[in-house]
Amino acid sequence: MAVGNDVLPTLYPVPGLRLATVSAGIKKPGRQDLVLIEAAPGSNCAAVFTQNAFCAAPITVAREHWQACGRQPRYLLVNTGNANAGTGKQGIADARATSEAVAALAEVTAEQVLPFSTGVIGEPLPIDKITAVLPAALEALSPEGWADAASGIMTTDTRPKASSKRFSVAGRDYVVTGIAKGAGMIRPNMATMLAYLGTDMAVAPELLQSALSEAVNISFNRITIDGDTSTNDACALVATGAAANELVSQQDSPEYQALLSSLQEVCVDLAQGLVRDGEGASKFVTVQVAGGRQEQECLDVAFTIAHSPLVKTALFASDPNWGRLLAAIGRAGVEDLDVNQVALYLNEVLIAERGCRAQSYTEEQGQQAMAPENIVIRVELNRGAAEAAVWTSDFSYDYVRINAEYRS
Amino acid sequence: MAVGNDVLPTLYPVPGLRLATVSAGIKKPGRQDLVLIEAAPGSNCAAVFTQNAFCAAPITVAREHWQACGRQPRYLLVNTGNANAGTGKQGIADARATSEAVAALAEVTAEQVLPFSTGVIGEPLPIDKITAVLPAALEALSPEGWADAASGIMTTDTRPKASSKRFSVAGRDYVVTGIAKGAGMIRPNMATMLAYLGTDMAVAPELLQSALSEAVNISFNRITIDGDTSTNDACALVATGAAANELVSQQDSPEYQALLSSLQEVCVDLAQGLVRDGEGASKFVTVQVAGGRQEQECLDVAFTIAHSPLVKTALFASDPNWGRLLAAIGRAGVEDLDVNQVALYLNEVLIAERGCRAQSYTEEQGQQAMAPENIVIRVELNRGAAEAAVWTSDFSYDYVRINAEYRS
Repeated sequence: MAVGNDVLPTLYPVPGLRLATVSAGIKKPGRQDLVLIEAAPGSNCAAVFTQNAFCAAPITVAREHWQACGRQPRYLLVNTGNANAGTGKQGIADARATSEAVAALAEVTAEQVLPFSTGVIGEPLPIDKITAVLPAALEALSPEGWADAASGIMTTDTRPKASSKRFSVAGRDYVVTGIAKGAGMIRPNMATMLAYLGTDMAVAPELLQSALSEAVNISFNRITIDGDTSTNDACALVATGAAANELVSQQDSPEYQALLSSLQEVCVDLAQGLVRDGEGASKFVTVQVAGGRQEQECLDVAFTIAHSPLVKTALFASDPNWGRLLAAIGRAGVEDLDVNQVALYLNEVLIAERGCRAQSYTEEQGQQAMAPENIVIRVELNRGAAEAAVWTSDFSYDYVRINAEYRS
Repeated sequence: MAVGNDVLPTLYPVPGLRLATVSAGIKKPGRQDLVLIEAAPGSNCAAVFTQNAFCAAPITVAREHWQACGRQPRYLLVNTGNANAGTGKQGIADARATSEAVAALAEVTAEQVLPFSTGVIGEPLPIDKITAVLPAALEALSPEGWADAASGIMTTDTRPKASSKRFSVAGRDYVVTGIAKGAGMIRPNMATMLAYLGTDMAVAPELLQSALSEAVNISFNRITIDGDTSTNDACALVATGAAANELVSQQDSPEYQALLSSLQEVCVDLAQGLVRDGEGASKFVTVQVAGGRQEQECLDVAFTIAHSPLVKTALFASDPNWGRLLAAIGRAGVEDLDVNQVALYLNEVLIAERGCRAQSYTEEQGQQAMAPENIVIRVELNRGAAEAAVWTSDFSYDYVRINAEYRS
């Protein structure tokens, strides 16, 4: 089950990046389960890794290699079917071994190869299966490989997620393209979220990192909560410089602003794609909170609503249960909240105000607002000018089925 | 669905307290939906109310009356079928009106009557139905009324919850008896939790309040998280003084210590009863975390595990999914957690240590540990001497069904 259509958009190649997707048969024979991404020499790479104390072996190794190579990795290697998490010292050795195998074949250093894994936790990584297909992967590298890679990194996802934008600054054309996977969407952070993005703009490393952080903050972090990440979450952005622009090193430059804007669009697209393909999702829900004193209290209210199993089961039932929404707002920890100032909308319908059901509201209006696949819950706190939005899905029988049956 | 047996224990009457349960037909005709509790004159009452900013009208009125009568209410009136929440000014007026109706009939002041409601949010309270049966309720008051009252306060509960203890201090006998309701057990705080407790010991008001707070903290607050309460949650403890002991006013007195101990036992019994009857529950799960630096970090780890939908669906599937458990421990926000020190047990089986699956562990052992209805998840952090336990249930199809269908 997933919300909306599943047609991939046009994906523009990123000059300086090539991708290959092959089958290593890690979990199932024949499955396209290994993705190799190659960056042209001199490419800069920004990255965000999970904050989980139990981070998986590839995260440890990827972070270490990323620093060791001056944030200029030449290859990113991603396998599905096995997370190489909860595998102790052997897991670290295995992650290093796959990097070394790529390095030997491609004639780079092992530190220039970042490993990523997603799949079952606690099983040893079958490195022989992976190394066996690396020559074929190197052979298959292509600038057109984005769509196949979007499928290749999937696990319980039911559809690939990808997004791509072109833009021009001062007469020069640029591109941002990205792919993402992850489907444990009730709290997406708990499933492995992986995202790989590329641009051909030449951008200084610190600035690239700040662009990625800003974009992640309003996209992937709006479908999750701080620090509440899985063992394998990672997001990387490679800037190849193939557009041959002068290196962007100022935050107020038109190039940086244009890159940031497109990157944000791509990341929001991908993040929303993750929610739409949430495990068992039948609704795509935008929770908008406006009129807060600070953005943080808007986010607190939005996430309290978005995480409430009672709200999510009501969404699954298309039930305009404003009582559960008010209860969630009331326990979000907003200081001195005056409930008589709060207004609550489902799409365009005012359903509650002054702490109770709106005079104008009818159950028919509520039912009508809840019927579509796309629902907007809008909360007006009426105590300031800050606002924030998060995205979530509903909580269905299928969510329980998928998560109870996974591994069996 | 519920875990364990549903036989009510012996409930000892509390001299000085009488209870009546009658049918007002609030939501359905014939349902025993109104409970009246009468306290002898001079009884002291301690109480804990929801912290939710959207608290229901009866909570506002009960809190106000409780203060106004010097914490010596004579009557507690509880209706099910209607929460009188999200009902604005009319709701407040209705809660007052029911108190006034009891007061007029029983010849007490309205401030000596505390109203409580649980049920559907946002519907006007049918006060005529309630006031019509108040004379019958007063007529029916009996010291033996605990078991009926335990059933009378139920909503989506599948069974009544009650507990009772007798104890002696310095040759004098005392009793503590209590009832509770609440079944939205994934995060129980989000359903209405109501509990009423009585003792015949004479206890000074401040001391009674501190006993209740201490007992609630290790019972009802161990199946919930701070501040994360429903609109109607309340817990009241009446001390009638009918045992005719000298008023207990010292925390180090043997009477206070004995009362606290029995009260804690009763509250833990009731809290565990709420979890066993959790919506859709098929497992009763104790999450023990030991070896922490402070109790709070043990609680943080325990609640992160207990709230994880991925852990809860694995429990429903009887799947010894230690990877999800490690991931939950890792994101609980424990500072400087050394994952290599952490050990994880299911019942008596060591399943993970040093950040990965235990050498001695076999899947068969794990399957065996997960098979019973009662599961203990034990985490050893090995960094200090603090420990804590919380109780939770699993996450089943039935949870989704119950909460998706409620109201429809």
